[in-house]
Amino acid sequence: MTADRRPGLRSESVRQANLTSILRDLHLGGAASRSELVARTGLTRSSVGALVGELVQAGLAVEERAISDGSPGRPSPVITADTVGNVVVALEVAVDFIAGALVGLGGTVLATRRVDRHRDRGSVDETVRDLVDLTRQLERMHDRPVEPIGVGVAVVGLVRRSENVVAIAPNLGWRDVPLGDLLVDALAYGAPITLANDADLAALAETRRGVAIGIDDVVFVSGEVGVGGGIVSGGRSIIGRAGFAGEVGHMSVNPDGHRCRCGSRGCWETEVGEGSLLRRADRPADAGRAGVEAVLADAAAGDAGALRALAEEARWLAVGLGGLVNVFNPQMVVFGGFFGRLYPFIIDNVRDELRQRALDVTASELLIVPSALGLDGPLVGAAELAFEHLLADPLGAMLAHHRDLPA
Amino acid sequence: MTADRRPGLRSESVRQANLTSILRDLHLGGAASRSELVARTGLTRSSVGALVGELVQAGLAVEERAISDGSPGRPSPVITADTVGNVVVALEVAVDFIAGALVGLGGTVLATRRVDRHRDRGSVDETVRDLVDLTRQLERMHDRPVEPIGVGVAVVGLVRRSENVVAIAPNLGWRDVPLGDLLVDALAYGAPITLANDADLAALAETRRGVAIGIDDVVFVSGEVGVGGGIVSGGRSIIGRAGFAGEVGHMSVNPDGHRCRCGSRGCWETEVGEGSLLRRADRPADAGRAGVEAVLADAAAGDAGALRALAEEARWLAVGLGGLVNVFNPQMVVFGGFFGRLYPFIIDNVRDELRQRALDVTASELLIVPSALGLDGPLVGAAELAFEHLLADPLGAMLAHHRDLPA
Repeated sequence: MTADRRPGLRSESVRQANLTSILRDLHLGGAASRSELVARTGLTRSSVGALVGELVQAGLAVEERAISDGSPGRPSPVITADTVGNVVVALEVAVDFIAGALVGLGGTVLATRRVDRHRDRGSVDETVRDLVDLTRQLERMHDRPVEPIGVGVAVVGLVRRSENVVAIAPNLGWRDVPLGDLLVDALAYGAPITLANDADLAALAETRRGVAIGIDDVVFVSGEVGVGGGIVSGGRSIIGRAGFAGEVGHMSVNPDGHRCRCGSRGCWETEVGEGSLLRRADRPADAGRAGVEAVLADAAAGDAGALRALAEEARWLAVGLGGLVNVFNPQMVVFGGFFGRLYPFIIDNVRDELRQRALDVTASELLIVPSALGLDGPLVGAAELAFEHLLADPLGAMLAHHRDLPA
Repeated sequence: MTADRRPGLRSESVRQANLTSILRDLHLGGAASRSELVARTGLTRSSVGALVGELVQAGLAVEERAISDGSPGRPSPVITADTVGNVVVALEVAVDFIAGALVGLGGTVLATRRVDRHRDRGSVDETVRDLVDLTRQLERMHDRPVEPIGVGVAVVGLVRRSENVVAIAPNLGWRDVPLGDLLVDALAYGAPITLANDADLAALAETRRGVAIGIDDVVFVSGEVGVGGGIVSGGRSIIGRAGFAGEVGHMSVNPDGHRCRCGSRGCWETEVGEGSLLRRADRPADAGRAGVEAVLADAAAGDAGALRALAEEARWLAVGLGGLVNVFNPQMVVFGGFFGRLYPFIIDNVRDELRQRALDVTASELLIVPSALGLDGPLVGAAELAFEHLLADPLGAMLAHHRDLPA
């Protein structure tokens, strides 16, 4: 009935929560001895023993006697997530490319592939067909049959999470596309398929495997054709009611600014998106990443026009960031997409302007860093999304997995 | 180490979680039979029986045989939170007044008091003295000795939560004031004292006892001298790293706008704060709430200047709200402070403008409503804050409470 209420716990759900705790630790923290798991999870030694036993039996963990490091005493066994036996498929639908990866439990990337495509290849049917082709190629790149335990898909658009529907993807020209269901049929796996926005997943990825590991309050902003955002607050992704949160590109920062393709005017992305930077540097607005690189080369050579364009970019970045920083009080802002490339050229200007735009107490403790995962962020996040149901209920998910395998 | 990891559960913490579940249900949901508690918490009948027994023994709940309603069978006992024995003190430091309340477990308001004061009475020492006087008056209004189990304080400023320090309160002229520690000494209770920002608490209050009960994604915006905000996303308050989140009044919405007292320019509050509305209606910017009421009276009488001022207010409200709605994808926006009073005059204009400013898919499912708690919001939220440690660990908090009572 109310926000903070949570249902009571039965002993079954306690066991499940504890299995989750250990499996999540192995998945994200890597190999560990039993003693390390005791220290890291706060569970008793005997509980850890029993729970590890269950995970090993379920095929989720492997326990191996470690090679002695020469110190006295018996070497203690090392437990790792069973990477090889537990694989997910991560897919990404971007404007100019599609991409995919096979990722094992523990985060090991087993195969990866990216295919550029023209924007006019963006029809739904073609995209689904291309994604299936790409997935089959990934399967062939792997040395054993692939029966994924989950599929995660990053999409450059707004995703209605409960329905796995792309509600709107302006840069693809999509509206109300049931991409989840289409992929269930086309891929013909038994595994659950989950969709999310690409920037939301890139933000998640940075907190799990990137530059923001262990940081609970993160604002991720990504410069692409548009501007995407993903926010983690108090250790949790901000999703919103339907899954549409994080559309930072459509904050109004300039009421008399350019018309935005969303229908509004002066949205942040009309001031700091790729096209604006290129226009300010007197280049064609559709020159893309190559155009951005050319502007940076000019700036490095001291070209006044390029430097001015970057200074304007920094100013408008700080105007929008100031609002986000005041609203979220993050510990870290991560620059993704081409903002990550711009970082060394603009960070001093951004910091200066931000000192004026954000409240002192908030800005003075703020870290601003470039993304660690770069272009791989959405795909890494999609893999994490695909593992989520397994981590939430390890034994339940494995039972469903084996039941749904083709006989 | 990572965002989503949570420590394993021992059986003690399970018992604690289940006591929390039942006590929170009684506190927020009101009286219940054992069967209702079984249905509401998902626990077994025998667990509920044992846990209720513990709560009764700890003095936190009362079990009474209900009067038969005439239906066949024995009437089943009704369990309620023990309101009289478990009281918190809620305090509020606003710009123009201080306020306080005694609130019993379950949310019953036992005594309340508000004292207007001039802005130049805002020194820290005077404020602490006034708060103590007001608390003693509340104690005298109650019919039995007050030994509160917690004190919650709402402050019109940015609060560093971990330290109970007011980091900055521009409208009070405060900076780095250890108000928590000062009140611990001055009130001389054994109970823990917790501080938070007034708008954050008003938002919490609306989700617990106001217009947003049961709604997990809420943006609360409050028009005062400045503009405050509180956000609940996925059922949890957005706090930020230090506690400074929710400063929606300082999003840049107009880069060429008025200088803001935060040092920036064109902050949302410079466009929609009380002073702007009054100036646009050709009234002194410091005419306060009475001035706002005069503008509304003029508008009701058809005065063109007042109507124009309200239309401008609506437009700028929508500009900022559009950004917040795109960033948070809330189910509900709540208008607090004088925005709540303006609501009937401006809501149509706000909705029209918002259709342009926010993404369709997000705006089309959005509720916009006036606050239910009005001026009481921060105080109601402060009481909820004061109960939080009791709800999180009922028996632990009671033990500490009895240990800390004067002998």
